[in-house]
Amino acid sequence: RLKQYIIKKLAEDWIFLVLLGFMMAIVSWCMDYASSKSLQAYRWMYESLSPNVWIQYLAWVSYPLILILFAAVFCHIVSPQAIGSGIPELKVILRGVVLKEYLTLKAFVAKVIGLTASLGSGMPLGKEGPFVHIASICSVVLSKFMSVFCGVYQQAYYYTDVLTVGCAVGVGCCFGTPLGGVLFSIEVTSSYFAVRNYWRGFFAATFSAFMFRVFAVWNKDAVTITALFRTNFRMEFPFDLQELPAFAVIGICSGFLGAFFVFMNRQVVEGIRRNQTLSSFLSRYRFIYPAAITFSIATLTFPPGFGQYMAGALMPRESISVLFDNHTWTKYTGDPLLLGRSAAFVYPNVFITLPLFFVMKFLMSVIATTMPIPCGTFMPVFVLGAAFGRLIGELMAYLFPNGILFDGIVYKIVPGGYAVIGAAALTGAVTHTVSTAVICFELTGQISHILPMLISVIMANVVAQNLQPSLYDSIIQTKR
Amino acid sequence: RLKQYIIKKLAEDWIFLVLLGFMMAIVSWCMDYASSKSLQAYRWMYESLSPNVWIQYLAWVSYPLILILFAAVFCHIVSPQAIGSGIPELKVILRGVVLKEYLTLKAFVAKVIGLTASLGSGMPLGKEGPFVHIASICSVVLSKFMSVFCGVYQQAYYYTDVLTVGCAVGVGCCFGTPLGGVLFSIEVTSSYFAVRNYWRGFFAATFSAFMFRVFAVWNKDAVTITALFRTNFRMEFPFDLQELPAFAVIGICSGFLGAFFVFMNRQVVEGIRRNQTLSSFLSRYRFIYPAAITFSIATLTFPPGFGQYMAGALMPRESISVLFDNHTWTKYTGDPLLLGRSAAFVYPNVFITLPLFFVMKFLMSVIATTMPIPCGTFMPVFVLGAAFGRLIGELMAYLFPNGILFDGIVYKIVPGGYAVIGAAALTGAVTHTVSTAVICFELTGQISHILPMLISVIMANVVAQNLQPSLYDSIIQTKR
Repeated sequence: RLKQYIIKKLAEDWIFLVLLGFMMAIVSWCMDYASSKSLQAYRWMYESLSPNVWIQYLAWVSYPLILILFAAVFCHIVSPQAIGSGIPELKVILRGVVLKEYLTLKAFVAKVIGLTASLGSGMPLGKEGPFVHIASICSVVLSKFMSVFCGVYQQAYYYTDVLTVGCAVGVGCCFGTPLGGVLFSIEVTSSYFAVRNYWRGFFAATFSAFMFRVFAVWNKDAVTITALFRTNFRMEFPFDLQELPAFAVIGICSGFLGAFFVFMNRQVVEGIRRNQTLSSFLSRYRFIYPAAITFSIATLTFPPGFGQYMAGALMPRESISVLFDNHTWTKYTGDPLLLGRSAAFVYPNVFITLPLFFVMKFLMSVIATTMPIPCGTFMPVFVLGAAFGRLIGELMAYLFPNGILFDGIVYKIVPGGYAVIGAAALTGAVTHTVSTAVICFELTGQISHILPMLISVIMANVVAQNLQPSLYDSIIQTKR
Repeated sequence: RLKQYIIKKLAEDWIFLVLLGFMMAIVSWCMDYASSKSLQAYRWMYESLSPNVWIQYLAWVSYPLILILFAAVFCHIVSPQAIGSGIPELKVILRGVVLKEYLTLKAFVAKVIGLTASLGSGMPLGKEGPFVHIASICSVVLSKFMSVFCGVYQQAYYYTDVLTVGCAVGVGCCFGTPLGGVLFSIEVTSSYFAVRNYWRGFFAATFSAFMFRVFAVWNKDAVTITALFRTNFRMEFPFDLQELPAFAVIGICSGFLGAFFVFMNRQVVEGIRRNQTLSSFLSRYRFIYPAAITFSIATLTFPPGFGQYMAGALMPRESISVLFDNHTWTKYTGDPLLLGRSAAFVYPNVFITLPLFFVMKFLMSVIATTMPIPCGTFMPVFVLGAAFGRLIGELMAYLFPNGILFDGIVYKIVPGGYAVIGAAALTGAVTHTVSTAVICFELTGQISHILPMLISVIMANVVAQNLQPSLYDSIIQTKR
């Protein structure tokens, strides 16, 4: 009888995990599909108005403005709990604090719709944090639902086990990175971790990521289930030991930059709050703030205007694939059309566009993530890190144009590898985690840079942890 | 003053982790170096006696016999605690049981020397388990040593934190797989895990794995720090969704095989113990047992004899690189010399040598790991899994000789990819862990098969966990 009970329980736990994984895969894929269609429409509208610059500008600015305002209004009406990232709140919940109406279906709807709109606007906003929130709601609601007709999921099992699995699934199927998802959720949410949840998280996240990628195959977005931002660096000699100082520099600088990002983010929020007139004005007309930010970011990135010096035409996901590409831009002399989207960085000059892109996106990301809409910070920081790493990589390729001599064979420097390392290091520094390296491997589908990347990420963490709290802790502090 | 104290503590923790990582990297590298030289000598001796088969046989059998007997005698005299894997004992220690004289310098010396000898004998024995023991001793001794002149490492900090880091470093620098090392040690040793140790383990294991690989570069074994068993599968289309059933079959079969391995291993130990005459005889003449096993294994693998039908000439590490190779053996018609070591499998016939290799190595590994010497089970099981996966892969390549049609392009099946998946699944089933998948990625340096591999590993775990305890728990049970 005990055995039967155990089998029943096991079977139900399985069903729960499979259902959770499947649901989140559908949600994740639908959100990606809708937001990418929205970005396509945005680009199509902008391009089809081609001869007239002023109407183009109007379209370029008004499209994100409408979407962001829609997201802000929708969240404000349906559920104000859906605003922001979600990871800080989950961290607080997992420590035992009860946040009211935070894990309800209302918040779920508001977050899914609001997040799709904000991702579809092309602003530097991310999906990861809100998606963790969405997955946690889903997991809590699902476990409640299942407890109704089998009575297994008791309250004690609730807030830790169900939520931990929810977090893992959230990160895991956001980009199809199950391993990194489980590890990231461990690092970010808990300080003591029950190993049985590791296994459950693994199961659900893998199933979820698998379904997420299978949907893409069925929809002909991808030919087979591989990584989302697949890189194609050479494998026989990915890097030389002599390049390690450069990787270490990326790590240390990323540590400082990550701490600076957290600092700036807090300054923006606290600066507005400290200024009495501004804060009372903004709380009365609460949609002025996102509108003003969206307007200025869209204006700055307008491709025929200032945007041409900072690759403004690139949407967040595009810029990642571009920054990870396999050419060496400083040495590219061929036809710009062959480069595809990368051409945005190569012309007028790599050493103008890339630093400008980095600085402008840095400020934009800092400010954009304070808007009262569902928005994550992981992806914008990832883009920033990739840009920074790429900058160092291109500098190295410029300084050593012939590459590195080893064993009689000259090996060229791969700037894309530097970009991957930079992305991992900066996200690691901002979130105070090392599992960003794992997420990076899974995103790119290449693990050849594992040792330098781990070293960079650890160095970035060492620097950042001594300067600032993690972004999530910083948000918890400001909300207190 | 508090701040100063914290800084001091941090600095010392750092120094501890770096020292630990560095020491273990040296030990690991030296052991690898010595055992590979020993294997070279073995092969050289065997080959230089070439015309005379009987003297060849004598050399082939006596060399491992001497080394294994040396290891057995040495451990018996210096420290009997050095016998066996080490992970089961550490698991017990981490649960709070005090095992006498288990973490002493004597055991360290016995284990290092004994393990080097047993690895150098070419028997199907592994390095991972004993190396975890070695690293744990090192970590405990080092922390004691450091507490002498700074007094920071208290007793409470001891058995969990220091040992957990030791485990992570042990797995991590055994094969240069820091990520997998940390995860494997979490899964195998603890049921609640302190996340701060995750970070510390990561730091030490990464540093250790890095130094381990750098030594190899300095010694010109490798051109740059990449994976130990680097694979070179095509990346643009690593596998098709239609191949997933085959991967699932590998996972499920691996689950059964893994459980069978654990069952057999226990049967051997308990069978001897149950037979009164045999066990009293063996305890009186305790070196008869390893001698008899070594003699029969060496006889069976003798290349001109039965060994030619089971690729007997291949040493454990060689067989891994061979099983992961990029050719499709069933379709190979060219010059056998071009295949290098893989020729051992291709001639006389893949479907004779490969199943025979698997069955014979399975029995040999089951029996060899019960010898009273320092020996791990991870590596032999890894080889078995690779052979099993390769078998399925070659079968698939035989059944679909033209590969898989997708989008107008015909993609060939990559049997090496199946081997990697099989290796991860079988080790996962035997140890009841999912992080073997991570170890596999780091060992091969390719992550393109991540989703099918995770699915196989999870399936293998589901099957194996319902049939048998993990190998380590099984050993704990028999020793009780």
